[in-house]
Amino acid sequence: MRFEILATCPDTGARAGLLHTAHGIVETPVFMPVGTQATVKGVMQRDLAAPLPEGLDAQIILANTYHLFLRPGHELIRKLGGLHQFMSWPRAILTDSGGFQVFSLSDLRKITEEGVVFRSHLDGDRHLFTPQSTVDVQLALGSDILMPLDECLEYPASHEAANVAMQRTVRWARTAYEHFQTRASETGSRSALFPIVQGSMFADLRRACAAELVELDAPGYAIGGLSVGEPRTLSMEMTEVTTPLLPHDRPRYVMGVGMPEELAEYVARGVDMMDCVLPSRNARNGCLFTASGRVIIKQARYKDDAGPLDAECPCLTCRTYSRAYLRHLFQAGEMLFSTLATIHNLKYYLDMMRQMRQAIQVGRFRAYLDSVRNSAVESN
Amino acid sequence: MRFEILATCPDTGARAGLLHTAHGIVETPVFMPVGTQATVKGVMQRDLAAPLPEGLDAQIILANTYHLFLRPGHELIRKLGGLHQFMSWPRAILTDSGGFQVFSLSDLRKITEEGVVFRSHLDGDRHLFTPQSTVDVQLALGSDILMPLDECLEYPASHEAANVAMQRTVRWARTAYEHFQTRASETGSRSALFPIVQGSMFADLRRACAAELVELDAPGYAIGGLSVGEPRTLSMEMTEVTTPLLPHDRPRYVMGVGMPEELAEYVARGVDMMDCVLPSRNARNGCLFTASGRVIIKQARYKDDAGPLDAECPCLTCRTYSRAYLRHLFQAGEMLFSTLATIHNLKYYLDMMRQMRQAIQVGRFRAYLDSVRNSAVESN
Repeated sequence: MRFEILATCPDTGARAGLLHTAHGIVETPVFMPVGTQATVKGVMQRDLAAPLPEGLDAQIILANTYHLFLRPGHELIRKLGGLHQFMSWPRAILTDSGGFQVFSLSDLRKITEEGVVFRSHLDGDRHLFTPQSTVDVQLALGSDILMPLDECLEYPASHEAANVAMQRTVRWARTAYEHFQTRASETGSRSALFPIVQGSMFADLRRACAAELVELDAPGYAIGGLSVGEPRTLSMEMTEVTTPLLPHDRPRYVMGVGMPEELAEYVARGVDMMDCVLPSRNARNGCLFTASGRVIIKQARYKDDAGPLDAECPCLTCRTYSRAYLRHLFQAGEMLFSTLATIHNLKYYLDMMRQMRQAIQVGRFRAYLDSVRNSAVESN
Repeated sequence: MRFEILATCPDTGARAGLLHTAHGIVETPVFMPVGTQATVKGVMQRDLAAPLPEGLDAQIILANTYHLFLRPGHELIRKLGGLHQFMSWPRAILTDSGGFQVFSLSDLRKITEEGVVFRSHLDGDRHLFTPQSTVDVQLALGSDILMPLDECLEYPASHEAANVAMQRTVRWARTAYEHFQTRASETGSRSALFPIVQGSMFADLRRACAAELVELDAPGYAIGGLSVGEPRTLSMEMTEVTTPLLPHDRPRYVMGVGMPEELAEYVARGVDMMDCVLPSRNARNGCLFTASGRVIIKQARYKDDAGPLDAECPCLTCRTYSRAYLRHLFQAGEMLFSTLATIHNLKYYLDMMRQMRQAIQVGRFRAYLDSVRNSAVESN
């Protein structure tokens, strides 16, 4: 998987690049919409891929290995031609390892050196995930970017617990990477596996983890274990200590972030890829991001508001419907609300990433970042 | 509202026509998708209006006066430019009078000659619907076709009760029609009100009701009080005794029908318009209509079925997704299932109506009807 850096910001760590996958080119920095169960909730694939300026034009989405392993099952998806064909999404797909969901959704987790035994949140069935098996599951799915099994701790964790988990994550990453390389060379797979830097909120552990994983010479690296309840400053700090230790010429992916106003902060720290359920989940809950701030659509002030959700947004929702109609759909519990709201929030995120990319390319990212910081200060 | 009959079937009562509304021409016979709360559940307006051959190209939809009166309120919709503008639907809209919902959804109904007092199913608030007020509500919505308040009985009802309700329905229809004509001439409205023939399952009452209502010389007529639990043969019989008594040159609308195999039967009896929640509700429940019969998508046989839902259907769902993927979405409780399933079922209904229309125009409706009857026999 080739990564080309086209431009770097002279004042920050921001970079604009191209990630070449077997399912198209991904322009970075990029935000990946989350399609947990082989669907970005409420949004048709056609609308995710719809062209600019109105469309979302998402070039890569994320799917969850844990969920797809349990239902409908990776072997079924393999049989049906892989995840791209199964869900009619011809563009790039990144899958997580399932580790995070095992820790957040399932019961009866038992971690050994071999892997993790857990009970399905659907039917209570017992399963084992190992570093090798989660690679095999993701290869069956045909993901473009795979993640190795890792141990993700809650916040706060003791230094000792974090160190134990980090060391295991490193050993699992080595096992997974080796297994992946063997399988990929057997099958001629053009996918890539990105090891995950862990270490909870301890800078020394993050550094140690990064140093170990860099030895794998992987085509990309992820920073995991953030967005687990820690203060935002800590997530930023952990990113900041980690990215300089990762190879400059490989993409860096921070998992599970972030708020709209944080995206530029991550990019400024040299992050190329992000994902988060926030824009889509908030959309379904009636919290919409706009150029002039958050819109909580259920508020009575929008009852007779004939204007678009965001006058500056070219998305289908903003071009077609009024705030009053969106509020009505939300209040009435109508499905269409979730669809329209998700389209808008994802458009907001994806367009923001495109603005950053352009700012980096024309040498104005520092000014962009300052303007984001100033609006954040103003809105506080 | 002008209605043009373009062709009639020499062997049955079927007719193909054009209904000219202020929001476009409606080709009849037509099936109207139900958009209860100013949205056809799960389907974007863009997709409802998408052009043939792939699109639904719905020319008219139905909305519910009762629901919109309660939420968001007809005065709000009026203020926002009327229902067409509110819901971004530039094509024709028919609204019912709310009578049916008052009888099926709300508590504490008290019927007097003046109207019906009821409690909202949303918050228990008390409201009064009168023949005049429901016209005013629908004029505020800006509907193209309005329905007068009627009294709709459950099945079975006694002849006496049915007679009382029918007589009241006739008196209310006169009041509503007069009120509508006054208001429409004041405002220059191009809408039309269709009186509703009631009479439960008694042919004599249906005939008497039709005879009374025809005196109003309305631009169209509806047949109501069907699909309330009676055997199908009775619904057909009531339609059959009523349509010959209605003016030949006016559109006839049978409310709340029907099953796919019944549509041609109604058309054969001279019906021009129908509506039903069945295709959309069944879709959401995983029951899909196809050229080769019903598909209950949760069945295990579809688990690894890579084929389209209906190989003969040109809709977005059938062109894009497999049965296996649709089943997965359904099993996983994903919203996208409802959207894709509703698009397909509505496409199935609307295309069937277009086939009938074409068959009438080329003089082959009798053969079409026979073929529908034969497949119905075969599938029994």
